[in-house]
Amino acid sequence: MSDLTSKGPLRLGIAGLGTVGIGAVKIVQRHADLLARRAGRPVVITAVSARNRTKDRGADLSAYAWEDDAVALAQRDDIDVFVEVMGGSDGPAKAATEAAIAAGKDVVTANKALLALHGQALAEVAEAKGVSLRFEAAVAGGIPVIKALTEGLAANAIRRVMGVMNGTCNYILTRMENAGLPYDEVFEEARQLGYLEADPTLDVGGIDAGHKLALLSAIAFGTRVSFDKVELEGIQRITIEDIRAAADMGYRIKLLGVAQMTGRGLEQRMSPCLVPADSPLGQLQGGTNMVVLEGDSVGQIVLRGAGAGEGPTASAVMGDVIDIARGFAEPVFGQPAAGLAEPVPALVTAPAPYYLRMALLDKPGALAKVAAALGDAGISIHRMRQYDHSDTSAPVLIVTHRTTGSDIAHAIERFGATGVVQGTPVAIRIEEV
Amino acid sequence: MSDLTSKGPLRLGIAGLGTVGIGAVKIVQRHADLLARRAGRPVVITAVSARNRTKDRGADLSAYAWEDDAVALAQRDDIDVFVEVMGGSDGPAKAATEAAIAAGKDVVTANKALLALHGQALAEVAEAKGVSLRFEAAVAGGIPVIKALTEGLAANAIRRVMGVMNGTCNYILTRMENAGLPYDEVFEEARQLGYLEADPTLDVGGIDAGHKLALLSAIAFGTRVSFDKVELEGIQRITIEDIRAAADMGYRIKLLGVAQMTGRGLEQRMSPCLVPADSPLGQLQGGTNMVVLEGDSVGQIVLRGAGAGEGPTASAVMGDVIDIARGFAEPVFGQPAAGLAEPVPALVTAPAPYYLRMALLDKPGALAKVAAALGDAGISIHRMRQYDHSDTSAPVLIVTHRTTGSDIAHAIERFGATGVVQGTPVAIRIEEV
Repeated sequence: MSDLTSKGPLRLGIAGLGTVGIGAVKIVQRHADLLARRAGRPVVITAVSARNRTKDRGADLSAYAWEDDAVALAQRDDIDVFVEVMGGSDGPAKAATEAAIAAGKDVVTANKALLALHGQALAEVAEAKGVSLRFEAAVAGGIPVIKALTEGLAANAIRRVMGVMNGTCNYILTRMENAGLPYDEVFEEARQLGYLEADPTLDVGGIDAGHKLALLSAIAFGTRVSFDKVELEGIQRITIEDIRAAADMGYRIKLLGVAQMTGRGLEQRMSPCLVPADSPLGQLQGGTNMVVLEGDSVGQIVLRGAGAGEGPTASAVMGDVIDIARGFAEPVFGQPAAGLAEPVPALVTAPAPYYLRMALLDKPGALAKVAAALGDAGISIHRMRQYDHSDTSAPVLIVTHRTTGSDIAHAIERFGATGVVQGTPVAIRIEEV
Repeated sequence: MSDLTSKGPLRLGIAGLGTVGIGAVKIVQRHADLLARRAGRPVVITAVSARNRTKDRGADLSAYAWEDDAVALAQRDDIDVFVEVMGGSDGPAKAATEAAIAAGKDVVTANKALLALHGQALAEVAEAKGVSLRFEAAVAGGIPVIKALTEGLAANAIRRVMGVMNGTCNYILTRMENAGLPYDEVFEEARQLGYLEADPTLDVGGIDAGHKLALLSAIAFGTRVSFDKVELEGIQRITIEDIRAAADMGYRIKLLGVAQMTGRGLEQRMSPCLVPADSPLGQLQGGTNMVVLEGDSVGQIVLRGAGAGEGPTASAVMGDVIDIARGFAEPVFGQPAAGLAEPVPALVTAPAPYYLRMALLDKPGALAKVAAALGDAGISIHRMRQYDHSDTSAPVLIVTHRTTGSDIAHAIERFGATGVVQGTPVAIRIEEV
């Protein structure tokens, strides 16, 4: 760990000169005085590293030593903090982070995939080595949510963590609703705007947001990061019909992460959910992120802000750097990594109301048969709407009282036997926020 | 400062056993294991102090030493952290805080009045002595906003800080709107519910919220706490007519704090403002608090949660305690107090649109005369509505384009000369959020 008593400059090595890396460079260059006053010592960049040295990145890097190899950067004697903003869960990012820790450097990373998959191992070696590994920028961009959860709410038993943490998915869903466009068309639009990862499944499949949820969950519940136990479902099956129908019933559809410790174990889900249209989560438009933290003393805290982009992400990276400059040191996930328990995943998710949409054939007694099938599955109906007929079928929307996913699955099976339901009904959980 | 290398228990002395103090006691008793894991050492209470020893406070205090005198508590050898939750800007709270600092104790306080009036002096002595003085609970209850601003957003030049930070005022304003009741009636209701301070002017006069704004402002802009330079206006003049009229135009009235550094100096205002009804601030109901932080890199961050109450406030107090247990040490206002500049107050507030409500006499050309008076004052009209006449006058609402408070004052003077405006028009700033 850097020597704090001397209060010499804190020297950064930045690996990765994409949007976030260049954003961090710009902050250091623009705010040298401000950073020094707030950090208690100058914050300087000593060396940088990226794949292509000759590319023009819109910032003057000539004063910094250059390394082609991030591992070499991580091991330089003249850096105190290794800033990893390369991305990628394995390969150079992982190798360089491990090298930095082994060399006794503090590490600041924006890499959610790296930590979601290797966070436990990295935390254990960092803590054994006595260095910091901070990752505010990895979750919800500029929103200081890791800090709020790890430090601000540290005196709370956390009950639930929820979040809309993938701006691209939220952009797609709100754009579908506002413009009345189908998923495929908005997806293509998002691709052309450069909003999608090279592998778009990372976004629309919920993987990126799932990584973030797994990190929050580890801090909140004192369990090992367990991304492999996050129930993942993306937004690909969400249709404009469901968005409209949900709106009709007073809801919006969000790709929502929920982590909660229940009597049955740890529940971690990242999936499309309905939330009330007038709730803070429901009103979230476009690329903005929102995280909801619920603690036994504090009640509900809602944090909202930009989830991505050069400025917000670099703000989070540099906030971590300033914490390190100030000498703040804490376990990576807020308590010693070696003591984190392997979570027992909840096999059954907590009961919730569900939204059902189906096409009912125009036959006498059709609605009664559907209602009876629900009753047989132990599900009671909170609200039901039948819309204008087409030639042969009528759209029906149902909001149930609280029930379980497996009861819903049973009911949908029973619908088959009624002979009045056309195609497969859509079922989406309604999260009580 | 407590010896951190030993990692012995961190020993608290709690001065004040009202709602917040007892809340902190309950957290220590309920979450001993959780606190020890997260703080890296046990957190224990050694001694407590309050005015009345015999009162039943709903918590078992028998294991703690008792002091009648908070100063004596602050000086005990067996405490590391002095937790000041007595309240009051002077008297025992100030004396005991000073005594604790002089005795080399770290201090955690929930006392906004103390810090708003004596923060600079206390910070200087605390920093000279090398002890922490933390005050998360003093601003916006359970919302970790001091942490977000001082640490999370430390790499940003802050542009503006806004907040609804007095739950009682927000309760009164939202209750007036929702129940259609006049101010006096809701004020009386709030008093009977125990929502008001003994001196209600602290709440409805905006003083309590002004204290909080002054603290945020010092951190945000690196200036000395200067509560005496906060432009203060309470909610006492807000009528149900204005609340209804604002709603008609798409706004809500909030007691809103705004601090921003402008080319003309530091602007600090705590006053009723109109905000768009569909904005996060506009949608804030009841006693909830909201703080908006705007930084040059991070953009806009919105934080929302309970602004008062046993659990939320104690959560903030204990969050500070855990930070101290972890060894976090930083200047009180985020940079050395001795270097904080005396702010130059902006004599003119930044231009904004204004809402005007007036009663227009039923005379030919009346509206034209008002419009002309506005034009003569250099104010252009964005929207205007005239409502149904009573016998002799008609309510008129005007939303202006951006203008200044002094131009509005000039226009109101000119209205007098028109002979068509009955009584004094109401003018309220519309804050662009």
